[in-house]
Amino acid sequence: MTPKIGFLGLGTMGAPMAINLLNAGYALNVWNRSAEAAQPLAEQGATVTSTPAQAAQDADILISMLADDHAVEDVMLTQGALEALKPGALHINMATISIALAEQLTAQHQTAQVGYIAAPVLGRVDVATAGQLNIFAAGAPQLLAQAQPLFDILGQTTWHFGDTPAQANAVKLGANFMIASAINTMGEASALTQGYGIDKKAFIDLITSTLFAAPVYKGYGQAIAEDRFEPPGFKLALGHKDVRLALEAAEQARVPMPQASLLKDNGLDALAHGDGTLDWAALATVAYRRAGQR
Amino acid sequence: MTPKIGFLGLGTMGAPMAINLLNAGYALNVWNRSAEAAQPLAEQGATVTSTPAQAAQDADILISMLADDHAVEDVMLTQGALEALKPGALHINMATISIALAEQLTAQHQTAQVGYIAAPVLGRVDVATAGQLNIFAAGAPQLLAQAQPLFDILGQTTWHFGDTPAQANAVKLGANFMIASAINTMGEASALTQGYGIDKKAFIDLITSTLFAAPVYKGYGQAIAEDRFEPPGFKLALGHKDVRLALEAAEQARVPMPQASLLKDNGLDALAHGDGTLDWAALATVAYRRAGQR
Amino acid sequence: MTPKIGFLGLGTMGAPMAINLLNAGYALNVWNRSAEAAQPLAEQGATVTSTPAQAAQDADILISMLADDHAVEDVMLTQGALEALKPGALHINMATISIALAEQLTAQHQTAQVGYIAAPVLGRVDVATAGQLNIFAAGAPQLLAQAQPLFDILGQTTWHFGDTPAQANAVKLGANFMIASAINTMGEASALTQGYGIDKKAFIDLITSTLFAAPVYKGYGQAIAEDRFEPPGFKLALGHKDVRLALEAAEQARVPMPQASLLKDNGLDALAHGDGTLDWAALATVAYRRAGQR
Amino acid sequence: MTPKIGFLGLGTMGAPMAINLLNAGYALNVWNRSAEAAQPLAEQGATVTSTPAQAAQDADILISMLADDHAVEDVMLTQGALEALKPGALHINMATISIALAEQLTAQHQTAQVGYIAAPVLGRVDVATAGQLNIFAAGAPQLLAQAQPLFDILGQTTWHFGDTPAQANAVKLGANFMIASAINTMGEASALTQGYGIDKKAFIDLITSTLFAAPVYKGYGQAIAEDRFEPPGFKLALGHKDVRLALEAAEQARVPMPQASLLKDNGLDALAHGDGTLDWAALATVAYRRAGQR
Repeated sequence: MTPKIGFLGLGTMGAPMAINLLNAGYALNVWNRSAEAAQPLAEQGATVTSTPAQAAQDADILISMLADDHAVEDVMLTQGALEALKPGALHINMATISIALAEQLTAQHQTAQVGYIAAPVLGRVDVATAGQLNIFAAGAPQLLAQAQPLFDILGQTTWHFGDTPAQANAVKLGANFMIASAINTMGEASALTQGYGIDKKAFIDLITSTLFAAPVYKGYGQAIAEDRFEPPGFKLALGHKDVRLALEAAEQARVPMPQASLLKDNGLDALAHGDGTLDWAALATVAYRRAGQR
Repeated sequence: MTPKIGFLGLGTMGAPMAINLLNAGYALNVWNRSAEAAQPLAEQGATVTSTPAQAAQDADILISMLADDHAVEDVMLTQGALEALKPGALHINMATISIALAEQLTAQHQTAQVGYIAAPVLGRVDVATAGQLNIFAAGAPQLLAQAQPLFDILGQTTWHFGDTPAQANAVKLGANFMIASAINTMGEASALTQGYGIDKKAFIDLITSTLFAAPVYKGYGQAIAEDRFEPPGFKLALGHKDVRLALEAAEQARVPMPQASLLKDNGLDALAHGDGTLDWAALATVAYRRAGQR
Repeated sequence: MTPKIGFLGLGTMGAPMAINLLNAGYALNVWNRSAEAAQPLAEQGATVTSTPAQAAQDADILISMLADDHAVEDVMLTQGALEALKPGALHINMATISIALAEQLTAQHQTAQVGYIAAPVLGRVDVATAGQLNIFAAGAPQLLAQAQPLFDILGQTTWHFGDTPAQANAVKLGANFMIASAINTMGEASALTQGYGIDKKAFIDLITSTLFAAPVYKGYGQAIAEDRFEPPGFKLALGHKDVRLALEAAEQARVPMPQASLLKDNGLDALAHGDGTLDWAALATVAYRRAGQR
Repeated sequence: MTPKIGFLGLGTMGAPMAINLLNAGYALNVWNRSAEAAQPLAEQGATVTSTPAQAAQDADILISMLADDHAVEDVMLTQGALEALKPGALHINMATISIALAEQLTAQHQTAQVGYIAAPVLGRVDVATAGQLNIFAAGAPQLLAQAQPLFDILGQTTWHFGDTPAQANAVKLGANFMIASAINTMGEASALTQGYGIDKKAFIDLITSTLFAAPVYKGYGQAIAEDRFEPPGFKLALGHKDVRLALEAAEQARVPMPQASLLKDNGLDALAHGDGTLDWAALATVAYRRAGQR
């Protein structure tokens, strides 16, 4: 018998993911903070609930795809979605959250006798729509096995990182730190070459056509090359938050991360200059400003 | 009429490059510090000279592929290769050298009425052997045009970066800084995830299969994942030297590069712990040591 | 009529401060987590209460001198000391706490119609005993005026930093950041000079006898010169915590503090190597370890 | 018999030092790049020479107090002062120079059979005038003993740092690094507290009256507190150069100095914004600019 699914969070990522599950034949109770975002789902057969607890109460499996720690705490704890889950249900938390919250939720779900796994994803909207996400999963093996049919619909590959949900969150924070590092590296390198009269587009074209021909460098590099930071694909302020979460995770594990610290300081420099709502690629411009190049 | 070529420096990169020119039908006078390295070239028809000046004196075009600033100064100035060049000849310097030396050589060649362009390359031995290097070229347009038939043999793509030779050296230093940054980023990210019990091989496989699926990350990442730093493909001490050259270039252009500074400090940490002769990938282990993970 | 004083926290700093108030003729209700520490106060005439709320309930002025954010939250909120205070009472919080908690407490005291000022101090045990502390005070002017007679007993100088309690906490965090910076600076400078065979004692004697003849440099410098990190005067782990609080405060105010970030990373390096319980001066040894000097 | 003294370099520091030697009864041959600066010395009985070699040729002891590496190389080597010294003479180099040049000069003096010691100083013009400098001396013990009567006139204390002249230069670079670090620390700390609405003058007054009541903090702190960076006491560009020399020395000794790297990057930020001719204290303003506070 197919499990009954609750789905919390129908933002730019959550909505196409929920649609893919509907299309695969699952019955979904969906909830979103603003009701309008749920409308398209309703048209495709989802049942829209007015509270997260209602979406959770009948679910065999609850998927949440919420914005950040604050949203997860609010929805799961304050608004009672965790409390509404029946014993034996499974909650798959796909958000990028802090290690501290991951560990807290793990303990709280255990107390509630509800299964809990973390499954943050890599990929933007188009990848989510195509069901081609990369999913980082961690938690008890039997729970991961239970979730796998859903992951097969949502993503191209599921990567397992251990029995403790927080491990998948650590991987996600590590990956996002690496993105910030790539952006900042392009910023410093193009500040250097600009110092010798080289157009940054020429430099970035070279780099991203050869050694650094990877999606991250091509995507953010293009924006940097063209000084095109609006509309934001992913806001600098959100990227900055993820660097902070990586540093908090490093603090807890006693891992010095000086490069992450540098990225945080540059992120603050960008925020202090009003660039928080630009695309994350704008982090590169801190290097230009410090060199007096803008 | 095909130009007569002098070729100085038959190391791991220079030798296959010279062979490719021979195979394309050029006559070559070749010289190398240690004579044995010239022997295979002689067998393929090159004329081996006993001094760099002898290789330079008849050349229409002199190509030098030497190890570093010191070698270039020694061969071109102390040993008299520049002085031996006839007026109107062209010197193509393909080494990774400092901006300061590039500017000095530009002036000295001008005084000697010898053309001078810089053309450092991207690619390791196998790429050089296949004639598939990426060549960064800068200098007077007519000199670049004169060199292009040779570049077409040596490389897959020639990237032009301006009329001043030092510009190509700046690009090369920018690129090498980016490599160091990628290595260090993988080091910190895997130190973080190791702090949560995640095997670094699993983390690096994920990263290099998805967002960071680029040659630099795959190559160095594999070495990091497997703690395999010997034999060195490119020694850490040499990579450290290039980071220092990037910082010197940044100093001259008044460009703060805190990430490069961090890479230099980590390079010193590695050197102080005896890791200079390991592969550059070993730079990643500084993060582990600082975290008490080794 | 002299105000009735409640005093929470009789640690190494709190105990001599409370005694000074007793000696000045004030009636004190005192409380400490472990009862033994209250015994000497009882012998000098203080009334020992068994809960913080009991010490607070009769107080015109409540002074708290607790270890950290956690202790303040526990004592004031969980154990109900704030709730026990009568409307119109004044709470003087002399602990080094985070900006976030300072702002939360300010709001909570306002709701409770209880006055609240922050008054962290500079000075160690001997200074506290001598009633010679430097007190950084912030809060409403009339509340500061009300507290001044007590400050005159506890300290040599009261420095006013504004109407908002958190301002005094910001000053304290700024001062502690400067201490960490001085320690780390001595570490790097002596690593450099050790690299040239100079005994660090000779270097530090010079420095602290001339340009840097200040208490911080003399005190920590002596410990560094002699590699004497036990017993700890102030534990490295606590200093590290204060650097983190400074960075959190900087984050909130959007102030990049790369030097503080560096101090935090070095602090983590020290913690990862088991040095958290040593004196804060041991932060200097991170530089030696990185240079392979120990 | 009193030795005959040659004295090269009559700048703001050299002139009062030479006058003190004259006043003590020594016969001096003096030389300065611009002749006008020598005039006051002539009026007090010194013999002014038209070349550095002339000042050196009769000297038993040659003292040089030149601006930087470049001036030392020019005067001692290019203009032949070293060559002019008679075998058995002693050269006391009191400039702040690089380790590399110190080592080169040590070897060249040995070849020339001329004694060589390094004796950089701490103290500004007024201290030099009062004969109260702190002198850091290194070199062969008998040479140091020979110089001591002169040091007793020039300074209040002579600190010995070993048999190798470069050791005294390392100490001087370490000290100057510490000054830069103090300035930058005050910059970041006042940026933090300014972020909470605290006047930087109030903060710096507090700090320099208590824990950091040392000459460096009081002097530079006053300038920072008042945003008074002109006229420069010691130019930021010169301080930046000394930080670079410290980093070069650290590179040679394989000592990571991340705090020095940070100071160098901030120095470049200041230079890129046109602040090189301001007082070194202006280094503190980099923190304000990055925080959007100016």
